[in-house]
Amino acid sequence: MKIIMAKHAGFCFGVKRAVDAIEKSLENSQKVWTIGLPIHNPQEVARLEAMGLKVANNADEIPSGAEVLIRAHGEALNVIESLRSRDVKVRDMTCLFVRKAQDYAKSLSEKDYHVVLLGDKNHPEIKGIMGHAVNENNVEVVANEAEAEKISRYPKIALISQTTQREERLANVAAILIRKCLTLHVCNTICKATAERQDAVKELVTNNDVDGVVLIGGRASANTGKLRDIIKSHNIEVLWIEDENEIESNLDWFKNKNTIGIAAGASTPEWLIDKIKKQIGVRS
Amino acid sequence: MKIIMAKHAGFCFGVKRAVDAIEKSLENSQKVWTIGLPIHNPQEVARLEAMGLKVANNADEIPSGAEVLIRAHGEALNVIESLRSRDVKVRDMTCLFVRKAQDYAKSLSEKDYHVVLLGDKNHPEIKGIMGHAVNENNVEVVANEAEAEKISRYPKIALISQTTQREERLANVAAILIRKCLTLHVCNTICKATAERQDAVKELVTNNDVDGVVLIGGRASANTGKLRDIIKSHNIEVLWIEDENEIESNLDWFKNKNTIGIAAGASTPEWLIDKIKKQIGVRS
Repeated sequence: MKIIMAKHAGFCFGVKRAVDAIEKSLENSQKVWTIGLPIHNPQEVARLEAMGLKVANNADEIPSGAEVLIRAHGEALNVIESLRSRDVKVRDMTCLFVRKAQDYAKSLSEKDYHVVLLGDKNHPEIKGIMGHAVNENNVEVVANEAEAEKISRYPKIALISQTTQREERLANVAAILIRKCLTLHVCNTICKATAERQDAVKELVTNNDVDGVVLIGGRASANTGKLRDIIKSHNIEVLWIEDENEIESNLDWFKNKNTIGIAAGASTPEWLIDKIKKQIGVRS
Repeated sequence: MKIIMAKHAGFCFGVKRAVDAIEKSLENSQKVWTIGLPIHNPQEVARLEAMGLKVANNADEIPSGAEVLIRAHGEALNVIESLRSRDVKVRDMTCLFVRKAQDYAKSLSEKDYHVVLLGDKNHPEIKGIMGHAVNENNVEVVANEAEAEKISRYPKIALISQTTQREERLANVAAILIRKCLTLHVCNTICKATAERQDAVKELVTNNDVDGVVLIGGRASANTGKLRDIIKSHNIEVLWIEDENEIESNLDWFKNKNTIGIAAGASTPEWLIDKIKKQIGVRS
């Protein structure tokens, strides 16, 4: 069986920066916390927890004297401000692309734009971006074109994207919103790493005669989900797995496949990709 | 034969305001000029010229002591400024919707946006809007989606529409440009009268069982051209005419038609619509 890797896969710059910072902090202290999972990859979280990382469900659980790392997804402004006012050390590892989206939400809501976020309203990144607008009543989240159609008319609308969205959807939603306002300000905050990984997956399934793609990434990873959508839209079979054990339970999937592709989300660590690649090699 | 009028047809607010101003000026003076045709309707121009209006080919032809009315389409800033510095009286009758587009071109080019105008690069309105940007090298005109695809990448793009464009095309072009920049600022400067006339024509051809539409308007009228496009896109026959004489030379067109619609552009005067309606009534 021939295996072709997507040209861009695995940790993006922002995730690598946050994980490196957690590792560095753990070298000096055993009171290192994150609020929520530091990354949407259970295997990488388990590795960091084994090194001593503690994961709080919310900011209130962070004990005095702790060091808290704001994950790459970012946090609402009031959460960060309340932490800074307490006896905890805050290291803000918000991804620089997410930071940009947060800054837009703040500055455009200050300029009386009705802010529309394109993304998943339950995703921490979107919650954090919402939490940067000066008035949360003037912010709403749409997941897709159908939800954008339901937006009311406003004189000025600002459209900001979750960094992991597909550009095509952002373009479609912009085209819908321009009919609902006099001024539409669109911030293309889709991050380069996301676009690169999406383009690489598209290239993988169109320029190679693959019979299926093994997609490696956490089930909660938004950007991995978008990669699955792209592969499926080309009518190519996807096997979405989190770890090497899932190869064993899906051996049937590999039967009669001559060429398979491997792709991975921006929150999938290199060591996990390597492990899975080896396991596929052994089994094929 | 049944005749159904489009719900909105004929002079828009901006054209009516400009024509009224010309008539008023002509009551007091016989040195009243416009630069270029005051309106894209030859019959109405002939009526105003018969009242004494003089039409210059360019600003240099305006004689000293004249009163010059800036037509609803507007003019480039340098033309108006040079007129104001001379011994002529300037009355600026630029349509308020066009004025808005001009103001956007000025302010957004000042903020380092690359300004893209959606419209016809040979139309006086677009020339006037271009002539309000602070740097004409940073302005370009696209007529449609295909031309928008050819635009280079820029950090910030502003998209401004000719007031007579179709909203659908503005939306499509916005969707193309968002992929070419980080920030896209879209000004929906399509005027209400244009949208109303376009909606009225759409309603005319979809909700009524018309066998064809007589469209009344000047051949050079951009907004009338858009109405023709809409009718044709519904596979309905169009007879585009400028005056009542064209009814006589197109009697064949009316044969075997049970129901026809009548529509008219924003530069078509009421008296001309009435005349043509009567002529159709006589002939059918």
